[in-house]
Amino acid sequence: MEQPIGIIDSGVGGLTVVKEVMRQLPRETIYYVGDTARCPYGPRPVHEVKKYTWQMTRFLLKKNIKMLVIACNTATAVVLDEIREHVKIPVFGVIYPGARAALKNTRNYKIGVLGTIGTIKSQAYVTALKSINKDVEVISLACPKFVPLVESGEYDSPIAKRVVAETLTEMKQTSIDTLILGCTHYPLLQESIKNVMGSHIRIISSGEETAREISTLLYFHDRFNMNETVIPKHRFFTTGSKKIFSKIACDWLKKDDLPVETIYLGEE
Amino acid sequence: MEQPIGIIDSGVGGLTVVKEVMRQLPRETIYYVGDTARCPYGPRPVHEVKKYTWQMTRFLLKKNIKMLVIACNTATAVVLDEIREHVKIPVFGVIYPGARAALKNTRNYKIGVLGTIGTIKSQAYVTALKSINKDVEVISLACPKFVPLVESGEYDSPIAKRVVAETLTEMKQTSIDTLILGCTHYPLLQESIKNVMGSHIRIISSGEETAREISTLLYFHDRFNMNETVIPKHRFFTTGSKKIFSKIACDWLKKDDLPVETIYLGEE
Repeated sequence: MEQPIGIIDSGVGGLTVVKEVMRQLPRETIYYVGDTARCPYGPRPVHEVKKYTWQMTRFLLKKNIKMLVIACNTATAVVLDEIREHVKIPVFGVIYPGARAALKNTRNYKIGVLGTIGTIKSQAYVTALKSINKDVEVISLACPKFVPLVESGEYDSPIAKRVVAETLTEMKQTSIDTLILGCTHYPLLQESIKNVMGSHIRIISSGEETAREISTLLYFHDRFNMNETVIPKHRFFTTGSKKIFSKIACDWLKKDDLPVETIYLGEE
Repeated sequence: MEQPIGIIDSGVGGLTVVKEVMRQLPRETIYYVGDTARCPYGPRPVHEVKKYTWQMTRFLLKKNIKMLVIACNTATAVVLDEIREHVKIPVFGVIYPGARAALKNTRNYKIGVLGTIGTIKSQAYVTALKSINKDVEVISLACPKFVPLVESGEYDSPIAKRVVAETLTEMKQTSIDTLILGCTHYPLLQESIKNVMGSHIRIISSGEETAREISTLLYFHDRFNMNETVIPKHRFFTTGSKKIFSKIACDWLKKDDLPVETIYLGEE
């Protein structure tokens, strides 16, 4: 199946999933929507997150995607099950892949989760982890300052390092052996997070794990692109500034140029 | 769904999958068949491997399993697709999970594969890896001496260490960064393999990766056991010596006792 995989996010965070899909599944075409104009979703009420996520979903369904990935933890937490019920193609969130990877990795069954206020409040990771292993201990931490750092392109700055260190002070004092980056923006801060937490803590990135599971599901649903001659023509859609989006996307995906289009999905 | 997951293997090797399913999915019940009387499958002709694998499959289907895992690389290579076509429950092999994990891990796209003569001859890993990323370089090595070492319980002996070192001499000289243990028996030799190859090589164990993907598929097919009060009652069936099977299984799964039953599936 040569149709594209659709990936949606509240902004640029989902590009961490895109990067890994490109690396792990180089034959697949990606259509990406980043709702940067209305980012972040984390602090928004549930009904808004639902509405915006459905708008992105409908936009991509019209473009004949073969699979949908909700590459935003906040949106996954509030609307994944609903979209999955109503849509015929396989729909994927980023919470369970991270949860499964953490449960595979942990040896002391103490797992940390970093996320937006929306994700942490929803208890989506706690629910996912405990639905598989009820004896696991989960320590959650909302990090509302992280997404704005990434969306503004500040993720490499000294300010970012300081904010990360301050935010993680308490998490560092726990005895977790595995830490889930429960927001697709956070891998852009991964180096800083790793430096603060120490190398003995295994950091789980939603992006890598989701790409791996996309591969599993494409295989089981016979949806791989088997045509070797196709060169993927990815497309990127943003509801916000094409310039900022391009800059971050090119930087993160290590490309000189990317086909970015601005789209309008609805009111701010 | 409280029904058991069926796991079949030519002998005790599939216990490496069992161990990881117990750890990663503690709520799931496992029915295991080890065809120890006719092990190893590696050097056997295709028609025999097919026949024996179908016999184990039918035995477990009668016991109302909700998913089947062919935890033997040789059997996966020759008969997975056929069984998947004819059986209504999800059927799982161990080759693609290992391949996907290797592709996620590798950075230089040079991947080593160790397997039985049957698995290596079938080119199943080369096919799986290249179907996802055609540019990957695969270096395969048949290790016919490994399975007998494990099945005889010799995996911790000085002989095992010597055999592993001799077998891997050439593989050690390659520039792979990832090594797939393409036989579920090999994780019992993992320490020796790691010592020979060095800690810079990431070793991928089919068992761990398959358990992770079983978790993914149970979730996507709504087949998790959601009943928290059920205590899994695993069952183990062997076509060979109950005593040897019990000894290895208890040792490997770190249990004092396990419910092992001897069964007859057909002629040697």
